[in-house]
Amino acid sequence: MAKGGKSMATNMYDAAYALQKAITENPDFQALKASYATVQADPQAKVLFEQFRNVQLELQQKMMQGQQITEEDNAKAQQIVMQVQQNQKIAQLMQAEQRVNVFIGDLNKIVLKPLEDLYGSLA
Amino acid sequence: MAKGGKSMATNMYDAAYALQKAITENPDFQALKASYATVQADPQAKVLFEQFRNVQLELQQKMMQGQQITEEDNAKAQQIVMQVQQNQKIAQLMQAEQRVNVFIGDLNKIVLKPLEDLYGSLA
Repeated sequence: MAKGGKSMATNMYDAAYALQKAITENPDFQALKASYATVQADPQAKVLFEQFRNVQLELQQKMMQGQQITEEDNAKAQQIVMQVQQNQKIAQLMQAEQRVNVFIGDLNKIVLKPLEDLYGSLA
Repeated sequence: MAKGGKSMATNMYDAAYALQKAITENPDFQALKASYATVQADPQAKVLFEQFRNVQLELQQKMMQGQQITEEDNAKAQQIVMQVQQNQKIAQLMQAEQRVNVFIGDLNKIVLKPLEDLYGSLA
């Protein structure tokens, strides 16, 4: 079905760059960028957000390595989540992140569907 | 910078579907599909390939869970790799897979660059 070599490959990269540009221009992505800048510009929010990120990463790593999540881990996570929720700037950033994650997930599914169909048919 | 809501979002999904189509039409992807079909149609190659996949998955899971890879695991993996390498159809499939993985990785980097730039600037 392939209609010749190089031109198709070029087409694929053109399409990828077009998608990159569309993401950059997407209003939700722009909002995410602005929210990050707002958090970055506020030293208190910046530190709190970094602490939150670190706790998240720690828990993820523990889970991936099959380690037990302790009571202490949970307490620590809950405490930071409470602080984070009370910070308006971080709350806004997390909502913006959530919206971007949703559409990135959707785009990913669309783009990788040919591979999914292929591997799915094998299983 | 966002130039209005809905139209941008549509643009993004249009771009994603265009990329999906370009992947489907890509000669390397077409070759991968054909190689799979060839392996699937050969019962011996099919079983061997499934065994190989399972050994790969097992090792990956062990590594991700921080478990020790034993001498026995290594011997088992080496044995199946040797068998696989001697099978022309599987060798071809794995080469085709390799080529597709490379360009999918490239596309992924292009598409997700806006996010990488954003998170990179934070770190």
